[in-house]
Amino acid sequence: MPETNKQIRLASRPSGWVTPDNFTLTEEAAPEPADGQLLLRNIYMSVDPYMRGRMNDRKSYVEPFGLGEVLQAGVVAEVMESRSDKFSAGDIVTGMAGWENYSLHNGADLRKIAPGPAPLSYHLGILGMPGMTAYVGLVGIGEAKEGEQVYVSAASGAVGSVVGQIAKNLGCWAAGSAGSDEKVALLKDELGFDAAFNYKTTDSLHSAVHEVCPKGIDVYFENVGGAMLEAALFNMNPFGRIALCGMIADYNVKPEEMPPGPRGMILMVGRSLKMQGFIVFNYPELCQEWVAKGSQWLNEGKLKYRETVAEGIENAPAAFIGMLKGENIGKQIVKLADE
Amino acid sequence: MPETNKQIRLASRPSGWVTPDNFTLTEEAAPEPADGQLLLRNIYMSVDPYMRGRMNDRKSYVEPFGLGEVLQAGVVAEVMESRSDKFSAGDIVTGMAGWENYSLHNGADLRKIAPGPAPLSYHLGILGMPGMTAYVGLVGIGEAKEGEQVYVSAASGAVGSVVGQIAKNLGCWAAGSAGSDEKVALLKDELGFDAAFNYKTTDSLHSAVHEVCPKGIDVYFENVGGAMLEAALFNMNPFGRIALCGMIADYNVKPEEMPPGPRGMILMVGRSLKMQGFIVFNYPELCQEWVAKGSQWLNEGKLKYRETVAEGIENAPAAFIGMLKGENIGKQIVKLADE
Repeated sequence: MPETNKQIRLASRPSGWVTPDNFTLTEEAAPEPADGQLLLRNIYMSVDPYMRGRMNDRKSYVEPFGLGEVLQAGVVAEVMESRSDKFSAGDIVTGMAGWENYSLHNGADLRKIAPGPAPLSYHLGILGMPGMTAYVGLVGIGEAKEGEQVYVSAASGAVGSVVGQIAKNLGCWAAGSAGSDEKVALLKDELGFDAAFNYKTTDSLHSAVHEVCPKGIDVYFENVGGAMLEAALFNMNPFGRIALCGMIADYNVKPEEMPPGPRGMILMVGRSLKMQGFIVFNYPELCQEWVAKGSQWLNEGKLKYRETVAEGIENAPAAFIGMLKGENIGKQIVKLADE
Repeated sequence: MPETNKQIRLASRPSGWVTPDNFTLTEEAAPEPADGQLLLRNIYMSVDPYMRGRMNDRKSYVEPFGLGEVLQAGVVAEVMESRSDKFSAGDIVTGMAGWENYSLHNGADLRKIAPGPAPLSYHLGILGMPGMTAYVGLVGIGEAKEGEQVYVSAASGAVGSVVGQIAKNLGCWAAGSAGSDEKVALLKDELGFDAAFNYKTTDSLHSAVHEVCPKGIDVYFENVGGAMLEAALFNMNPFGRIALCGMIADYNVKPEEMPPGPRGMILMVGRSLKMQGFIVFNYPELCQEWVAKGSQWLNEGKLKYRETVAEGIENAPAAFIGMLKGENIGKQIVKLADE
């Protein structure tokens, strides 16, 4: 039988940047599944930028986290005990569960992971939501085609690093930006980007984007918002597409201080540009397509993937805050238990 | 033989608002067609917002007007003399020609108008580029469907007034904004809009838009930019579409003073919004579809249409400036000669 269950709860809603005191660690007896329920032993959990939005008490595409409640995350877990027809004890599954060691689950939106050569934690990253997001945004929304010019911001992140590699595998020019020289070197030397720059040490974002995309941009994969969106906008080619995945720069802003948008919106008219926000869950067929294609590319050595792994549920808040500040390289994972 | 030819030329490029001294009136002998050319007698010419962009010396989807050269406009004209196989003397045609009484033309992109019950000038308006623009933006880019909520800015203009009427004919809610109480009354009492407001006398654009679209906006047809785009953005429903037709507010701005874009771009992500600029000429099939559908609706009394007609080439600059300032009601036409 499981020991006690450590949990991270939302102690208070952040106003601006998230701080450690927005979280609290509690400990209680491990739960027992009722009829129809599963008891999950969480092995890996994911921390992702979208969670910042759920910490606000504001209408969005998912419900806000409740004050005092256990936070939710994508996990890879083992079914320890099943009182449901859908899953059996011993199954390895992925889906949403609590920031905790043991979770009760009704099985909805839980997906069984077939055994394969890829590490289990990859299903929270390159083969999970971030990889699916990269594929849906670049191919579905961005309509990237062979020979086109692709630029991605936050390019060394969980999503961006996959965007650039998909672009290269499709025969596109792939350029990106990141927040340190180390990350820029990773993009160019390890992930195969054609060009990249450090946005923190550049004088002019407009010029820097032009330098990494000298033929302009056909697809911009937007992860950061703010001044970067403006710099990309001015460099877009006619009929370019901007896939709006996230805007980290705007997540930590109080509503009353929401910054103005990019200058040059009028370029959208003259150059026939498309800008479109998307939520990966609304494109289930493309997601399936990605799991197949991504697995194949991984096997063929056509995709490289890095993780930053924190250990223990106690360290999940720090891992989350670090990810929001860009301290991780690749996908930020929290390991909660041994496989 | 034609008498002398009066012409309006670009005397200087405007910096900010267009003024009368940006134009000059010249007079010369009427031209004679060379082999392959037509001599056109211009009957009606159109003044349109996009012309403001061509007065700048800036790369856009069409070439800038040349300094000292005769300005170009959409015209309805009679072929006086033809030295081309494509057209015969007496044909009534529409296409681009000079701001002048008589033009030489090589026949490219010139379209013969079949006789019909609609007045000839309608082919510069509701059956011409503005009507086509309304249809392409609302149906092609905006993907408006029966039962949806449509909002259009500059709603009493040449394009906006057609957008609202198409929306009603498709079974949508149609709301609009305009710059005077007279125009608002026109929208509601004559053109069949469900709701409309005067943006010049409202305290809060955000609230005003909400009041005319209490169920939110599924399709926003954008004609003005600036603060209006922001107000619409905050009122968009999930999966809403913003068709970017023009941004009058930004046409008269010096590049170095280009204003910031709308706040709340992050809503594009959470609500899965699409924003897309378009140029009507890139959708020839939808344009053809409109000429057929628009003619049918006009015959059935399902479309109302108003024109403001200035008389004489000398008055074209004033008509153009007045149109940019919103002084016209409906399509602004300049009549150059009797039919």
